[in-house]
Amino acid sequence: MINTKPLSGYMELLPGEQVEFDRIKKIIEETYASYGFTFLDTPAIERSEVLMAKGGAELDKQIYFVNNGLYSKKENETALRFDLTVPLARYVSEHFNDLTFPFRRAHIAKVYRGERAQKCRFREFYQCDIDIIGRDSLSVNYDAEMISVIYSVFKKLDFGKFKIKISNRKLFNGLFENLKISAPVNKTLHILDKAEKISSEELEKELVELGLNNSQIAGLKKFSAIEGSVSEVLDGLNALGIENTIFNEGVLELETITQRMIEFGVEQDYFEIDLSIVRGLDYYTGTVYETILENSGLGSVCGGGRYEELASSYSNNKLPGVGISIGLSRLFCQLKELGIINAENKTNANVIIIPAEKENLSYAIKVSNLLRENGYKVDVLLEEYNIKKKFAYVDKLNPKHTVVVKTVAGVEVISVQQKVDGEIVKQEVSLESLGEALKQ
Amino acid sequence: MINTKPLSGYMELLPGEQVEFDRIKKIIEETYASYGFTFLDTPAIERSEVLMAKGGAELDKQIYFVNNGLYSKKENETALRFDLTVPLARYVSEHFNDLTFPFRRAHIAKVYRGERAQKCRFREFYQCDIDIIGRDSLSVNYDAEMISVIYSVFKKLDFGKFKIKISNRKLFNGLFENLKISAPVNKTLHILDKAEKISSEELEKELVELGLNNSQIAGLKKFSAIEGSVSEVLDGLNALGIENTIFNEGVLELETITQRMIEFGVEQDYFEIDLSIVRGLDYYTGTVYETILENSGLGSVCGGGRYEELASSYSNNKLPGVGISIGLSRLFCQLKELGIINAENKTNANVIIIPAEKENLSYAIKVSNLLRENGYKVDVLLEEYNIKKKFAYVDKLNPKHTVVVKTVAGVEVISVQQKVDGEIVKQEVSLESLGEALKQ
Repeated sequence: MINTKPLSGYMELLPGEQVEFDRIKKIIEETYASYGFTFLDTPAIERSEVLMAKGGAELDKQIYFVNNGLYSKKENETALRFDLTVPLARYVSEHFNDLTFPFRRAHIAKVYRGERAQKCRFREFYQCDIDIIGRDSLSVNYDAEMISVIYSVFKKLDFGKFKIKISNRKLFNGLFENLKISAPVNKTLHILDKAEKISSEELEKELVELGLNNSQIAGLKKFSAIEGSVSEVLDGLNALGIENTIFNEGVLELETITQRMIEFGVEQDYFEIDLSIVRGLDYYTGTVYETILENSGLGSVCGGGRYEELASSYSNNKLPGVGISIGLSRLFCQLKELGIINAENKTNANVIIIPAEKENLSYAIKVSNLLRENGYKVDVLLEEYNIKKKFAYVDKLNPKHTVVVKTVAGVEVISVQQKVDGEIVKQEVSLESLGEALKQ
Repeated sequence: MINTKPLSGYMELLPGEQVEFDRIKKIIEETYASYGFTFLDTPAIERSEVLMAKGGAELDKQIYFVNNGLYSKKENETALRFDLTVPLARYVSEHFNDLTFPFRRAHIAKVYRGERAQKCRFREFYQCDIDIIGRDSLSVNYDAEMISVIYSVFKKLDFGKFKIKISNRKLFNGLFENLKISAPVNKTLHILDKAEKISSEELEKELVELGLNNSQIAGLKKFSAIEGSVSEVLDGLNALGIENTIFNEGVLELETITQRMIEFGVEQDYFEIDLSIVRGLDYYTGTVYETILENSGLGSVCGGGRYEELASSYSNNKLPGVGISIGLSRLFCQLKELGIINAENKTNANVIIIPAEKENLSYAIKVSNLLRENGYKVDVLLEEYNIKKKFAYVDKLNPKHTVVVKTVAGVEVISVQQKVDGEIVKQEVSLESLGEALKQ
């Protein structure tokens, strides 16, 4: 027999898990849609040169090339996308004249990376992205909207308390300029990022090795020490008295964004300015954010930020943007590991109808039509099993509602069976009151 | 600059078309869901041996192999799926003990075939499949349910009058047995299929060449001549007086299915028994059906049928099933060619809010929060454009509703602007009555 296991590093879910995965994906999708983002759906296969123009050496190694004996002219000319940002950049460049800016696009789809297979790190995984792309410029108000989308998504997902940590790369760029630090910003930030893991002496030593002098290190430390509530951090930043245009732009952007976020309905307890967060990717140039599920022990589950150039490799147009990305497959796997994924319903149907006898089948179908018209997802068991086997079907699938159609004293009746605190409660209802009974 | 055109043979839509494509896809998805099908989402990449066990020579040539320099042990060991049936067969075989039968699965996803690129025939395309898989056996009632799903889908899609044409392979198998025709059924049917395209003499000549004698040809012709209403065709089949178990099983199945379909709410004018339809694939063994959009000139837009063995290559279990498939990318492209795709709304937002001045931004955001809570998909223009440029944004995107927030005599007011018969009608409303105003 042929090996039917899914390939190593690829997620394949059983029905109960898949129902829950889809529920989560749908919440993300509907929340993105509620902010008026338009979903795009570009081909999963791109020209390899398009992917490699942006990937960098690490990602290039992970590319899955796609070849067909008949139609691939050159070997490895095409490949599977490794993210949704490169396809967006290509799409906006190609269709520039047909798009309206600011261009709001959502994209939820699978991407492919030939990484070493590890727990919760997959070679095929879902990214759930939104981006807003400006033509030449883009208001910082959109950064605030992005963060409020994150807030809405995680409120609805209801995985417990979360915190959105916000910072701004301009603070660092301005501070480095002001302190006349010539060491590369990213390299220095990478060391600062280790502040909680290594001793103060080790940290200083590493910074000195990078060429920083004592006064520069003192300046960085003074900056890094700022913490507290949003207004305390903003006050602290202003109190540094740094006279640098970029730095002050960063502070002003943080002020604007945190104000607008409140207007968008983000509760104060769900976000903070955290100067220690530094998004890894080099292309972020302003606002950056991460999202932490408190008490989960997980790293950031949703991040993003502002970038100056979406598509410099493909277009001569200046295309600044702001975006967020949720790595859904990884998040789902992590939540499963934490034991907070409920995979008890093994069917997407919320009602299963059981005709007790063959003679009840027609009426059972009639009941199913009615429920379907009223928005229920209905599965009628059409097999002529004995009643025990029929209930085994329901028990295994464990839908929210079970409806039994049976003949009592020559009349067909509808019996609703619902689990209430583990006990099965039966209730006979008329066809007219069935919808109401299921709502209880 | 790098070539940013999508690859030849791959569909990439502009936002207006994508909004319409997604609307159609959602109708199919929600209708499948309303019948309680559980959506699966298997990896797009499979072991090549799994795909090639079922493909056949023609499909094997179309396979896209996937290779990654680091992790592919052998060249061309993995490949992109060319349909959703092979992944289903593998899934059911692999997870057999974790599934509940009859197993109802839906799968809407892209598949890949290296075909010659032609109009409306893509190398990456969506299939929208549902199948019900039995363990050892599966009631023919499910065949009727499948057809009623097709009916529900195309009623909701509202592309105009359609007809579901139904037949049963057992009629042919039984008839051939009864007439002692030893020529292969599929080859003979293929010739009969040309009945409307070639002359009666040519048809007979081809059948004689296949080894049929005059009485066999007469028997086939008598059978093929049966047409009319469902009851007329059933009467005609019974009137043939054929004493053959398989043939009569086929007739009985057609009787059962057409009766159950009516119970499922399928209107009589939307289906017929058409003995001339013959689904190409060899593995159909009972009920077969095609769907025709009347007056469209298109071939079948949705077909399927009953098969005896889903997974004989991967499993020792007997797994009969019944399924339907809609080739959505092809259908969408064909409908576009026919001019019946409306791509006028270039945004997924149904409301765009314009703050007239900067001072109106906070209130505009407040209005957006309220509408979003009430289920609207809302885009607030957050750029500080001049008013002309703001309206240009709305005009280009063409949402259903436009809401302008402005200050009149020192008070912020909400103005709803709707297109009614091409004319823009403005109406000032309170925050409380806004939802009502948008429903009009």
